[in-house]
Amino acid sequence: MSNSKDVVRKVLDQVKADNRTSLTAPEGKVVCDAYGIPVPKEGVSKSAGEAGKMASSMGFPVVMKIVSPDILHKTEAGGVIVGVKTAQDAEQAYETILGNARKYKADAKIEGIQVQQMLAGGTEVIVGSITDGSFGKLVAFGLGGVLVEVLKDITFRLAPATKEDALSMLDGIQAHEILKGVRGGEPVNRTALADVIVKVSQLVTDFPEIVELDLNPVFATAKDAIAADVRIVVDFAYQPKPKPRPTEEIVAAMSRIMQPKAVAVIGASAEDGKIGNSVMKNLINGGYKGDIYPIHPKATEILGHKAYKSVKDVPGVIDTAVFAIPAKFVAAALTECGEKKIPGAVLIPSGFAEAGAPELQAEIVEVGKKYDIRLMGPNIYGFYYTPANLCATFCTAYDVKGHAALSSQSGGIGMAIIGFSRSAKMGVSAIVGLGNKSDIDEDDLLAFFEQDPNTSIIAQHCEDLKDGRAFAEAAKRVSKKKPVVVLKAGRTSAGAKAASSHTGALAGNDKIYEDVLAQSGVIRARSLRQLLEFARGVPVLPTPKGENVLIITGAGGSGVLLSDSCVDNGLSLMSMPPDLDAAFRKFIPPFGAAGNPVDITGGEPPITYVNTVKLGLSDERIHSLILGYWHTIVTPPMVFARNMVEVKKEMEAKGFVKPIVASLAGDVEVEEAAEYLYQNGIPAYAYSTELPVEVLGAKYKWARGAGLL
Amino acid sequence: MSNSKDVVRKVLDQVKADNRTSLTAPEGKVVCDAYGIPVPKEGVSKSAGEAGKMASSMGFPVVMKIVSPDILHKTEAGGVIVGVKTAQDAEQAYETILGNARKYKADAKIEGIQVQQMLAGGTEVIVGSITDGSFGKLVAFGLGGVLVEVLKDITFRLAPATKEDALSMLDGIQAHEILKGVRGGEPVNRTALADVIVKVSQLVTDFPEIVELDLNPVFATAKDAIAADVRIVVDFAYQPKPKPRPTEEIVAAMSRIMQPKAVAVIGASAEDGKIGNSVMKNLINGGYKGDIYPIHPKATEILGHKAYKSVKDVPGVIDTAVFAIPAKFVAAALTECGEKKIPGAVLIPSGFAEAGAPELQAEIVEVGKKYDIRLMGPNIYGFYYTPANLCATFCTAYDVKGHAALSSQSGGIGMAIIGFSRSAKMGVSAIVGLGNKSDIDEDDLLAFFEQDPNTSIIAQHCEDLKDGRAFAEAAKRVSKKKPVVVLKAGRTSAGAKAASSHTGALAGNDKIYEDVLAQSGVIRARSLRQLLEFARGVPVLPTPKGENVLIITGAGGSGVLLSDSCVDNGLSLMSMPPDLDAAFRKFIPPFGAAGNPVDITGGEPPITYVNTVKLGLSDERIHSLILGYWHTIVTPPMVFARNMVEVKKEMEAKGFVKPIVASLAGDVEVEEAAEYLYQNGIPAYAYSTELPVEVLGAKYKWARGAGLL
Repeated sequence: MSNSKDVVRKVLDQVKADNRTSLTAPEGKVVCDAYGIPVPKEGVSKSAGEAGKMASSMGFPVVMKIVSPDILHKTEAGGVIVGVKTAQDAEQAYETILGNARKYKADAKIEGIQVQQMLAGGTEVIVGSITDGSFGKLVAFGLGGVLVEVLKDITFRLAPATKEDALSMLDGIQAHEILKGVRGGEPVNRTALADVIVKVSQLVTDFPEIVELDLNPVFATAKDAIAADVRIVVDFAYQPKPKPRPTEEIVAAMSRIMQPKAVAVIGASAEDGKIGNSVMKNLINGGYKGDIYPIHPKATEILGHKAYKSVKDVPGVIDTAVFAIPAKFVAAALTECGEKKIPGAVLIPSGFAEAGAPELQAEIVEVGKKYDIRLMGPNIYGFYYTPANLCATFCTAYDVKGHAALSSQSGGIGMAIIGFSRSAKMGVSAIVGLGNKSDIDEDDLLAFFEQDPNTSIIAQHCEDLKDGRAFAEAAKRVSKKKPVVVLKAGRTSAGAKAASSHTGALAGNDKIYEDVLAQSGVIRARSLRQLLEFARGVPVLPTPKGENVLIITGAGGSGVLLSDSCVDNGLSLMSMPPDLDAAFRKFIPPFGAAGNPVDITGGEPPITYVNTVKLGLSDERIHSLILGYWHTIVTPPMVFARNMVEVKKEMEAKGFVKPIVASLAGDVEVEEAAEYLYQNGIPAYAYSTELPVEVLGAKYKWARGAGLL
Repeated sequence: MSNSKDVVRKVLDQVKADNRTSLTAPEGKVVCDAYGIPVPKEGVSKSAGEAGKMASSMGFPVVMKIVSPDILHKTEAGGVIVGVKTAQDAEQAYETILGNARKYKADAKIEGIQVQQMLAGGTEVIVGSITDGSFGKLVAFGLGGVLVEVLKDITFRLAPATKEDALSMLDGIQAHEILKGVRGGEPVNRTALADVIVKVSQLVTDFPEIVELDLNPVFATAKDAIAADVRIVVDFAYQPKPKPRPTEEIVAAMSRIMQPKAVAVIGASAEDGKIGNSVMKNLINGGYKGDIYPIHPKATEILGHKAYKSVKDVPGVIDTAVFAIPAKFVAAALTECGEKKIPGAVLIPSGFAEAGAPELQAEIVEVGKKYDIRLMGPNIYGFYYTPANLCATFCTAYDVKGHAALSSQSGGIGMAIIGFSRSAKMGVSAIVGLGNKSDIDEDDLLAFFEQDPNTSIIAQHCEDLKDGRAFAEAAKRVSKKKPVVVLKAGRTSAGAKAASSHTGALAGNDKIYEDVLAQSGVIRARSLRQLLEFARGVPVLPTPKGENVLIITGAGGSGVLLSDSCVDNGLSLMSMPPDLDAAFRKFIPPFGAAGNPVDITGGEPPITYVNTVKLGLSDERIHSLILGYWHTIVTPPMVFARNMVEVKKEMEAKGFVKPIVASLAGDVEVEEAAEYLYQNGIPAYAYSTELPVEVLGAKYKWARGAGLL
């Protein structure tokens, strides 16, 4: 490859020397040749005989063209013949073109006749690359033609793309069936096509100055994939983002910030209603056991803690400094934190980039860099880390410990997380506000929560990703161990517009986010409620061992809606083997329906639910259960719930551990039953056939992405 | 048209006489000509001169073909010339073909040379018709070509289709932009294309025996739309569904059933746990004021009401008979109801078609027809009609009166409706179980609730529609007055499979349901929870007077997510005129963002919400408001809620009535605030940015469908 690189470097050097921003077609061909990207074969023949041989070696048809610096309008001069089909025709075409040229301009300098392979047939596709502000180099694939332009059916991956990535792109477009051959069409050579994608992605990775590349169209046939046209745009000023910090470095700093031995509150206040007062109270009432140092210009003591004029006056080590002072005073106080060697600053104040003062933000970023202080915020509510009883925030204290780590770019969404968590009794390990993300962002949190034994799922709300590539790389690694759920706001153009007026962030093309997040194993939440429900439900479920999902329902109508939801959420309804079908039939009334859903019918006593669920848990061919409960006098809600929890425990003791979710149809008592089930490991929802299946679907998405299925 | 009909009738008579099931190409052309469906112009010329004139009159290019009963292989005989481009060429082609034919077979009888318009260019589309088991005649439109086959991008309407329907089909496909001309392509002639659709739909309506029709491809150009190929399949045994009952007749019967002066309970029981006992208790405890007649073979009195052996022994008139006896006894008891001239039977028992006993169901349907008794069920929970305090069901009594009429095909879903309604304090006018729908179905309910002053929204769960056409026609009429929401279960193939094992109903192609429901002004719910939330929220909102939606938010992050939801739900975020922008800016901090969303920022006191919402309500250019609340100490949840309700009332008193919905982000106190807002006319949701916008979106969908926008 080093020789290939030299070839491309030479071409690019020439383009740079010429002060051009794009390559000529011959230069594009040289670059493609160097990287083994197939383009039409071509050569310049000097005689009729040579033209015939050349054409034969390329395969027919070919197009032949005069090569002369003196003839610019080749067609006008009779210097082009297309569709040449045999060696003999090629020889004759040679003479004809030569004759025409002489007639057209007798003294033209003729360098020969170009013979070029003609491409036609197969499927026209597009392979390209763009450079995204957040994600950097991306490789793109789509179908050619006018319909695709209209339907915008295109897919992206981070470059460089592996062969696996490239193959997944062929299935990643809506019209993917076309590549498999429809209506008698031949399937394309997937390996050849994937190879083109991989090579393009390698080329733009090796040469970051290639900011745009288009192979359009590429003719993909059963035999090969050849680019008929190459367009390469360069920007020699392009600078890729600097490499992110090493993970160990991130974790070391984040660990001190999240689990501090001592916290300073800069702007602590004894006065009710002040942010510095709320922060102090939350630290104290939240049960934080480390040292708390209020920093205040005059006070000697605040809420029972000795106060200091500056962090520099504090005798001991400080790990985290929480800021509750106006924006204009932050830089100076931060400098003192630097001199005190405090590794982390939690910048609650607003009044920076989001409020039209980017210079204030730039200033604190500089201070942070100078002293190696990690900055959280500014413009945030702070953060919670429940294992350390730490409420470093001006919001209410939060105390339901658990294993979900959530973060939000926006303060309002943070408050919604807190409210939902408390209301739904969702245990959390952390809730973090990221705000303007002047420094600490989603990938820093991923690195910390990855190794945090108190966290089993990471759920993040964001409006943009400052460094999408760093995030994707971290997420790809972390999601192999723990589910990562992301709610990307500003999905739609209207949403994106609001996002940019809110944070000054440029919202990316949503399709890029969609594809790259999927490539990184991230579960994408489609709504705020979904983010919250996934954070709550996914960690409750054990990892399924296979794709076979079975619905057991007392309400036939729920069975139908649950089946709809399975399809919507990419779940496979197991097709029932006859012996299993017969086994279920033993437990259900003769007019009940076996198959899948197993419809036990509505009038059945608890034992019918128990027997069928036991069978569902014990048969190794079934991997997950969805229960549809119908409230009746015979089997009241709490009787159902207690029975199900018992069966689950009994079967788990025997080694049968499978995900179970439930949909409860009935009068208000089903709400209590749903809560009981949830608290006992069965995500359950009243009056909804979709939510339980969405949660199970999210678990499956994660397990597939992590390679566990 | 009657002459056209005669022409087609004659063709079809011949097909029938020949015992064929499809038309020949020339027959297809005759049919198309009769209905003015453009096909390529053609004629048979008898001389070179005539061929030239004929071709000129058609427009070039043309294709010319020998017409001879003695020459079967025209091409082999040199009898076909394509791409003839001038009159002179046509004359020459005439002679050439004639010469070739003579050479090929000297004694061939030659009838002339066919001259036919050659179609090419423009956009290839498909216009067709199918006959659906539920909806009857449907007209279909899609793009031609392989991509569309893969993407299944096709749209349906009931036949006959109006010109307006047909035009809406051109916008009803995913790739609709293609018809407008892309990449330099010409836009198609929309009127010409719509005209083809209308005529096809009229043809299949006039001749129900045409069960399939395909014009594929139709070449649609800027000038015209011409069908290159016609395929017509007939089934002379096809019988359209009988006309539904006249609406007045339905309403007369349904009114007696839903608002009876007297109810008989067949199978009434004094024994706890029996269905006949639950029904009696619900009637009594529900507060029903009419007469209650328990029917029992032996008892003289049940729960304080005099019992009778048969309905025939009851002295007075009975309007509704509720059945609580085993399936096998139903037919006999129903016959007695017939003899007693009872207009309606509520058939709670199961054990009919759903349990493998279709003959039992057929028997009761026969009895019903014979005596003109309308049958609800069998296999249902019964029904509630709250204005009459009527709980004709074995479920718990329901008492939250209101204006939503809900129905479900499935009992489990009915229980979910009852539970949700009670939990969410959603007032209902009726909850009806339809079960096996042996007689009364969704369109009967539509007819009743249309004229019921106690009902302002109709929300229905169904797995199939026995007579989709009758439903669509009723819904089209009713939805002009009241919103009709439908949750169609069995949307997906897996769901459809479960549906058929559940009720024996054949679930239809979902795209047909999608299009016809939209054509009928129905709001389609995508999930059970959505059906319920729409039933609850849509009637709370006043009808908007225009499309301009404004978001006012304290949480910028909510603003972004609310904007996303607006796009997802087809709402138009108003673009802000400069004067309005300036007016809002007066009320918000300098770093807040005006535009839309109006971001008032999080730290603002109640007056900022009040001022901006007042402005939003009073400016006539704004038609709806979406509020994003962020819980802070400065503006606690209930303070926000009370302020908003006050502002709303104050502005309503001044004549400013607009839909307002709200998304509340905050700690658990926002739940109480959401409920208060909801009860006071502002649908509000805690921890969700999507639900309030979905409800507003549903209101808009209805208003557009009803022609109010």
